Amino acid sequence: MTSKWPDLVNFNTAGLVSVIVQQHDSGEVLMLAWMNLDAVRETLATGRLCYFSRGRKTLWRKGEQSGQVQHLIELRIDCDGDALLALVDQTGVACHTGRRSCFFTSMTKDGSAQVGQALIDPGKLYG
Amino acid sequence: MTSKWPDLVNFNTAGLVSVIVQQHDSGEVLMLAWMNLDAVRETLATGRLCYFSRGRKTLWRKGEQSGQVQHLIELRIDCDGDALLALVDQTGVACHTGRRSCFFTSMTKDGSAQVGQALIDPGKLYG
Repeated sequence: MTSKWPDLVNFNTAGLVSVIVQQHDSGEVLMLAWMNLDAVRETLATGRLCYFSRGRKTLWRKGEQSGQVQHLIELRIDCDGDALLALVDQTGVACHTGRRSCFFTSMTKDGSAQVGQALIDPGKLYG
Repeated sequence: MTSKWPDLVNFNTAGLVSVIVQQHDSGEVLMLAWMNLDAVRETLATGRLCYFSRGRKTLWRKGEQSGQVQHLIELRIDCDGDALLALVDQTGVACHTGRRSCFFTSMTKDGSAQVGQALIDPGKLYG
């Protein structure tokens, strides 16, 4: 059970795999992002989370603008190889809104409600 | 901040949104799956997790064959509306291999290692 990791990942037709990002000690799910082969390779080599931005179509080194970097604790892959789980140590906040997690809105049958508070002014994150 | 939930979800061009599934009390990430509009609606209406199977192209009521159902505690959506986080109470195991979580393989620069043990014989799950 020591396959090389590139043999395990089933990238989709766009060459991407989805990545769940979880704070390693608290268990809080911070965000969902995407990686291509280069992003996985860079993340494992440097220990800093690097994604592929589908909007900008380029590698996105988390925190390069905002300083809110993520250090890799462990990278796991699921049973059919089409999703990764990154256990990280998040500096500051993961969300561009200044909240710790991107998942701050709760949905119900009849509406929705915000469950997370901003910890940092987003204007300060991106100057 | 009480938008109706269908206005919040940005389904992709295939009409799907990804769903991270997390055990509500332990914080363990169990699996990643997909929902279409009908699956979100059924999940919120019944309180039992219902997905869209991309392989079978049909609604997939988790546990309908295996008995390993998931009860919904809370459904959250992320800041840009293209990912959901389902906090659930998982009966038994989430993974078809008999493991609690689908994320039982750890990737490193040089290889990989299994970190989760099967709790149930998969042959017993699917008869």
